[in-house]
Amino acid sequence: MSKGVTPKSENYSKWYTDVITKAELADYGPVKGTMIIRPYGYQIWENIKSVFDREFKKTNHVNAYFPLFIPKSFLNKEAEHVDGFAKECAIVTHSRLKTSDDGSLIPDPDSKLEEEIIVRPTSETVIWAMYKKWINSHRDLPILINQWANVVRWEMRTRLFLRTSEFLWQEGHTAHATEKEAIDETLKILDIYKNVVQDYMGIPLTVGKKSENEKFAGAVDTYTIEAMMSDKKALQAGTSHFLGQNFSKAFDVKFQDKDNKEKFVYATSWGVSTRLIGALIMVHGDDKGLRLPPNIAPIKVVIVPIYKSEEDLNNIKEYIKPLMDNLTKNNHTNFFDNRANLSPGFKFNEWEMKGVPIRIEIGMRDYNNKVLTIARRDNNEKNTIDVNKGEDYIVNLLGDIQNSLYKEALKFKNDNTFKVDNYNEFKKVISSGGFVQCGWDGNSKTEYKIKEETNATIRCIPLNQNTSNDLKCIYTNNNAKHEVVFAKAY
Amino acid sequence: MSKGVTPKSENYSKWYTDVITKAELADYGPVKGTMIIRPYGYQIWENIKSVFDREFKKTNHVNAYFPLFIPKSFLNKEAEHVDGFAKECAIVTHSRLKTSDDGSLIPDPDSKLEEEIIVRPTSETVIWAMYKKWINSHRDLPILINQWANVVRWEMRTRLFLRTSEFLWQEGHTAHATEKEAIDETLKILDIYKNVVQDYMGIPLTVGKKSENEKFAGAVDTYTIEAMMSDKKALQAGTSHFLGQNFSKAFDVKFQDKDNKEKFVYATSWGVSTRLIGALIMVHGDDKGLRLPPNIAPIKVVIVPIYKSEEDLNNIKEYIKPLMDNLTKNNHTNFFDNRANLSPGFKFNEWEMKGVPIRIEIGMRDYNNKVLTIARRDNNEKNTIDVNKGEDYIVNLLGDIQNSLYKEALKFKNDNTFKVDNYNEFKKVISSGGFVQCGWDGNSKTEYKIKEETNATIRCIPLNQNTSNDLKCIYTNNNAKHEVVFAKAY
Repeated sequence: MSKGVTPKSENYSKWYTDVITKAELADYGPVKGTMIIRPYGYQIWENIKSVFDREFKKTNHVNAYFPLFIPKSFLNKEAEHVDGFAKECAIVTHSRLKTSDDGSLIPDPDSKLEEEIIVRPTSETVIWAMYKKWINSHRDLPILINQWANVVRWEMRTRLFLRTSEFLWQEGHTAHATEKEAIDETLKILDIYKNVVQDYMGIPLTVGKKSENEKFAGAVDTYTIEAMMSDKKALQAGTSHFLGQNFSKAFDVKFQDKDNKEKFVYATSWGVSTRLIGALIMVHGDDKGLRLPPNIAPIKVVIVPIYKSEEDLNNIKEYIKPLMDNLTKNNHTNFFDNRANLSPGFKFNEWEMKGVPIRIEIGMRDYNNKVLTIARRDNNEKNTIDVNKGEDYIVNLLGDIQNSLYKEALKFKNDNTFKVDNYNEFKKVISSGGFVQCGWDGNSKTEYKIKEETNATIRCIPLNQNTSNDLKCIYTNNNAKHEVVFAKAY
Repeated sequence: MSKGVTPKSENYSKWYTDVITKAELADYGPVKGTMIIRPYGYQIWENIKSVFDREFKKTNHVNAYFPLFIPKSFLNKEAEHVDGFAKECAIVTHSRLKTSDDGSLIPDPDSKLEEEIIVRPTSETVIWAMYKKWINSHRDLPILINQWANVVRWEMRTRLFLRTSEFLWQEGHTAHATEKEAIDETLKILDIYKNVVQDYMGIPLTVGKKSENEKFAGAVDTYTIEAMMSDKKALQAGTSHFLGQNFSKAFDVKFQDKDNKEKFVYATSWGVSTRLIGALIMVHGDDKGLRLPPNIAPIKVVIVPIYKSEEDLNNIKEYIKPLMDNLTKNNHTNFFDNRANLSPGFKFNEWEMKGVPIRIEIGMRDYNNKVLTIARRDNNEKNTIDVNKGEDYIVNLLGDIQNSLYKEALKFKNDNTFKVDNYNEFKKVISSGGFVQCGWDGNSKTEYKIKEETNATIRCIPLNQNTSNDLKCIYTNNNAKHEVVFAKAY
């Protein structure tokens, strides 16, 4: 912990892994591609989760739990949707171990399954098989179900939080009587995603629709929130899909409508995952480690006493207790770090690495002068504050840090987003990093060619755009159908 | 929903499944042995979970997340512990599907794994592999980690909530410097289990230690909370294991102690699962369906308006709103059921089936007389209450229902627990159902024989017993080593 991280400028990817390791957010699991989320990382996830969960419940969603295991035949059913990720998956073929002649454990050949089982890469199929059973009448609609679960997609190149075989996420799966309702739901969720990620995680976003190439194979339309990491690459932070009747037709889910006619239901699905923690690290982190927005920080304020004697320590404890109690009462989590045998400097570094927004240092001089020395993690500013004004100051400062982190990230994103109107410039920006806004003729072939030549993809077609008639496609120079955002992405 | 459940007396097992289906708690999944927890069932689980989670955190435990996948070799390492459940497990052998010549999906032979992967039946092995990495010094101890997760044990005979291939649980895994600390932890958790299950779920318990035969194979001592279902069978509702140094030795987890000596750490593990919902149903349910203790009920109060006109409905809404708002403010969840086209009688049945503790009926006569008709689910009593006294009455009544359900279950358990001193009587009680308290000589063979002859097992050796010197073993008539509780069990 005492050693720092590799500087960002030296090796961004090593910096990222160093922060995760040294802040004790996560670790590699024993099976290739798996990850352990350590307690500090998991607390961040719990905080993110609880905000989303509250917002989902406020909008009448309910949680449920569907099985980890999916019959292989279900993937056959929607074979056209499977083409993407679903082929790289964990396949269960046996149900029993036995001790072999040499004493080691082997899969018992007698336990070979008649039909292989797939560990869910996502739950659409198993959920739609149940919806077929549960949905009969318009009275059964809408169904607004979410689940918090683990899912598995086989990955060869692991990156903690960003790309692991197993990850944690929420997946919403809703069923509606009308197309309009389903589209409204898709956009309502997109809005929740945007607000939570911006307001709680302090991450500015570009919001829009995916192109045909980039959308979820089972969707009619995929909407996305895209964030810019501090290496100027994009990260897809959450998606909300309007599925139309694709799944209800694949799983034959009809309902009797008010007009007594049988109709296929309309559907949505949407998800955010522990990948958001990766975004959090890459958007706000610096060469000292994490910087956490107060709204999702497991510890908002850490207090480090500086003392020589047990008596001094007790005095400091007494001195700070009322403030800590008041902060706790108002849900501002705080921690008094009186671990023995560690220097204050060591503790400062550790809490900086862990991104705690505010550090209070209290030495005997502070104690005698009835002040607190307060350091903010985001910009390293230190101030000496009258202890009686401590609480107000800290509450304000937490709000200030939350805003500052967002603004800093927004400025970075804006500074690295370029409106471009010729392909040479496009290539220059993409190779040095950043988001490019430009015209696109709406043709998938154009998109593929650009990807081939530059590695950039269309991150999204931003919502609510008024494309001027003059706008030309950056590649073909034909009339542009949309203004889009291109970038290299995680 | 309108049809009732099979009476308990007619077919207990069918009654149980009917309640689950008709109260919409759960459903069968498409892969044999799997279960879907439907929103109402999941809300109960969320409530149970949040109480446990709060208690764990109060006692300094933290949550983390370990991988679903375990290398087969890890089970080899602790082969002696594997003998029990671990052999019946889901084994992953391939990592990719491919489209075969006939167009169907098959496991790609090229993706066969070098080493098979086991879907975790429990996480001791993967966690101890990590503890080896994380624990070096006494300063790293104790580690007090819990995780909320899904686990898989292959099951042929499914019973919803009680026996399914996949289930949800929490598993605590702690590491300590001394034996005493680890034993204290084991008992501290046992105490939390007992208090939560008794005080929130209203389920009376017999608490004690497992016999050698019945303990977890990897444990030195297993402690258990045992409940009596309304068919007089026992259900193991949670276990807390003192693991000694079994896992630290199997995974070579040593630490440098304050005296500079290297020592193996001491460990515990402990878990409760969604099986608790099965206990809840079987302890409190009746022929009208569920009866939920208010402390964990998703909806504590349901309001059913009885009206002819839209104007009446609006008046009733207005009339009840202040009460509902106040209840909500104090976390007494409530629901105004104004679904159209359903008769009040239908609604009454539905909410009784779902076990909502209190139902308020409001017709125009109640409205005009400024009263509420309040029905309690536990004993069907109905009272007419001055609307201004409604809130106090309801808050008291919720407490009363919570106590009554517990007392009723406790009386049932006491009435069906028999102190027995001869084997004929023992067999009679066991065959007609109930708990038997009797002497046991401490010999595993005796225990096996009794199990063979009667199907009864030692549920536990109750704590804090003063075994009289005169007590004889119920089977051998030798001097008893303990007084124990025998019963048939789920």
